[in-house]
Amino acid sequence: MSDGILARGPLTATPDNEGVDAAVAAARRVIAALLHAGNGSAAEMTDVAARLTEVAQHLEEHAPSREERLVDMWAGEGVTRHDPVTGPENAIAPPLPLRGLPDGSIVGTATLGLPYQGPPGCVHGGVSALLLDHTLGVANAWAGVSGMTGTLTLRYHRPTPLFVELTVRARQVSVDGRKIRTTGEILAGDEVCVSADGLFIDKHLPRPR
Amino acid sequence: MSDGILARGPLTATPDNEGVDAAVAAARRVIAALLHAGNGSAAEMTDVAARLTEVAQHLEEHAPSREERLVDMWAGEGVTRHDPVTGPENAIAPPLPLRGLPDGSIVGTATLGLPYQGPPGCVHGGVSALLLDHTLGVANAWAGVSGMTGTLTLRYHRPTPLFVELTVRARQVSVDGRKIRTTGEILAGDEVCVSADGLFIDKHLPRPR
Repeated sequence: MSDGILARGPLTATPDNEGVDAAVAAARRVIAALLHAGNGSAAEMTDVAARLTEVAQHLEEHAPSREERLVDMWAGEGVTRHDPVTGPENAIAPPLPLRGLPDGSIVGTATLGLPYQGPPGCVHGGVSALLLDHTLGVANAWAGVSGMTGTLTLRYHRPTPLFVELTVRARQVSVDGRKIRTTGEILAGDEVCVSADGLFIDKHLPRPR
Repeated sequence: MSDGILARGPLTATPDNEGVDAAVAAARRVIAALLHAGNGSAAEMTDVAARLTEVAQHLEEHAPSREERLVDMWAGEGVTRHDPVTGPENAIAPPLPLRGLPDGSIVGTATLGLPYQGPPGCVHGGVSALLLDHTLGVANAWAGVSGMTGTLTLRYHRPTPLFVELTVRARQVSVDGRKIRTTGEILAGDEVCVSADGLFIDKHLPRPR
């Protein structure tokens, strides 16, 4: 990104580096380390499994009911904290922080490791689809009219590398009644690896109460 | 699935319930429990973060180099053990076990929880894309001619529910030179939630050596 483009603040939740966010960041490190270690590792996997199970039990004992938690997740500012792409509370998310630009588009960068692998050394095509679907949705929110994905078309131009900083960007193209057109890309350096065209429908499911 | 349809064996790695697979299964439980607990939880998150960091450090100390690990991952039977959809070594994977059917199609079932949420109580559209991209790829492998995703089109027919057993199925439609056409769906009960059409190209990246 050019330094001349000013960010207009994050569109995604900023990790707190404490509380659940710190625990989730550590969980991401565990996920990657398990894949790096593999079955041939000299690590004591039985002990690792026991320690992780203990952590899960501790968390489960202190968790609210699923119904209570869903209400809480969808209240107020909570909505960007738990999704599987940008959420600081979701260990599956790389995470991909996104920010809005004055030209109406949005952009973010992330470097993906082994948990996101498809072909050897490359990002899984479905992971690229996940990142783009979400980023197109956030671009709609940034543009002011958002909705649910109706049709999403992904074009894979070249392999998307792991271990390299990727840029993900998107912008709303048009709004025609309830139909929203949105496009986006994943780039490695200046090269477009994957592009996406989305047709979104301006409707929203009710939030749990 | 009808009981009259005979499975012809799994197309995906079967978890061992020991070694790294058991540790990964416990890590999945931690990921879900962190999301269920959230920031309002009475759980001692600083302690949870410390315990997870210790586990990550132990694993990292015993891991091979990235280059060695990539060679090992892609050797022999390893290829289905680590992907983010079916892999028993990948905590991001739900996992979705897939099996081939005599009619040439493949099918699997999975129930997705909070880590895979998009709209309230529903599967993230990008997660559906991830599952379908991968399942279409495995359908190609089952049919005998596989490749890399060229174009993938997803149609979202209705919200895909969390916490309900979903069926994911796919089949190769045609092979024309290097162009492979493949389709698939995600169903909740008998209702199609998401359908996918893929154009794959019969080419493969070299395995790391």
